[in-house]
Amino acid sequence: MKYIILSAVFSLFMLSSCCNTPKENNDMNQNETLEVLKTRRSIRAYQDSVPPMELIEKVLEAGTYAPTGKGNQSPIIVAVTDKATRDKLSQLNAAVLGGTNDPFYGAPVVLIVLADRQYPTYLYDGSLVMGNLMNAAHAVGLGSCWIHRAKEVFDSEEGKALLKEWGIEGDYEGIGNCILGYPAQANPAPKARKADYVHYVK
Amino acid sequence: MKYIILSAVFSLFMLSSCCNTPKENNDMNQNETLEVLKTRRSIRAYQDSVPPMELIEKVLEAGTYAPTGKGNQSPIIVAVTDKATRDKLSQLNAAVLGGTNDPFYGAPVVLIVLADRQYPTYLYDGSLVMGNLMNAAHAVGLGSCWIHRAKEVFDSEEGKALLKEWGIEGDYEGIGNCILGYPAQANPAPKARKADYVHYVK
Repeated sequence: MKYIILSAVFSLFMLSSCCNTPKENNDMNQNETLEVLKTRRSIRAYQDSVPPMELIEKVLEAGTYAPTGKGNQSPIIVAVTDKATRDKLSQLNAAVLGGTNDPFYGAPVVLIVLADRQYPTYLYDGSLVMGNLMNAAHAVGLGSCWIHRAKEVFDSEEGKALLKEWGIEGDYEGIGNCILGYPAQANPAPKARKADYVHYVK
Repeated sequence: MKYIILSAVFSLFMLSSCCNTPKENNDMNQNETLEVLKTRRSIRAYQDSVPPMELIEKVLEAGTYAPTGKGNQSPIIVAVTDKATRDKLSQLNAAVLGGTNDPFYGAPVVLIVLADRQYPTYLYDGSLVMGNLMNAAHAVGLGSCWIHRAKEVFDSEEGKALLKEWGIEGDYEGIGNCILGYPAQANPAPKARKADYVHYVK
């Protein structure tokens, strides 16, 4: 009798503590993605260490699967983990602002998204790649932030020289810099969404 | 004795079929988000029925949490579930192409993203909202597709009249139409990613 009770208690424990039907499991996972989309924040303080390439590659892969106009895949991503190059990019970016502070907030990695101007949707396409990079970063526990002025940097002579050095040819426009790394801050609370963000036509 | 065996078998079944430690759960969920980002496809065939508003609102919420330049929330979303308005938008969109076919592929819902031109990052901002909408749609089992020509439609006199009718004032540019609904097709296989999508500077 003791064993029956013990077994029954154990069964109930298993049921209550960790079991979802497949349907519930599915809902939970769907909510996880919505949660990632909702809790991704711009991170402005980073640890020095470069995350493992395996993690960075997961983020990059998500970027390459962003939709693009007519599926033309107009963007490219330059994944910079080399410190000297990262510092040079920081300096060029700061110069656009007329300053010298690190606009990359100490992040050790920069994923530069550029897009081919020959495609009419290039700017929208490149932005979607940036979005996937930032969401994927949060999904794997990394921090990220969109840093602008990629356009100005890669329209400059020094920027163009970098693209050439990297073997990139074509009429590419800088869309954004997705800085990446382990956060050195708690995830910030979001600002309230503005009241009239969504209008319904029912 | 029979009860002991039954209970033990039941316990083992519960253990093997549905239990994850919190850590495993966490990893699994992270992968779920990456999987959603990777398997979201543009859907070009839809069922007629409008999805429940509860589901549409989850998608909309994810859209509003997309990052925007300096957190200015420059975009707005117009969620159209009214059939007459949806059909009118389809007709205006088709007219830009000089045709009459439904560019919305029969989707019953259109989430129009527009962004306020007074903010220099408005076009990037609006694109990120579009990205979140499409990813969230896939996360809750809905199909979506970016349909362009929102710019042309809302730069036209008829488009401006619609904005006025909806009580929207300001210098808004159409960024994209996120069509939405239950898919009437299997999720398409992705095209291969181009070979030189990612360049590494290590």
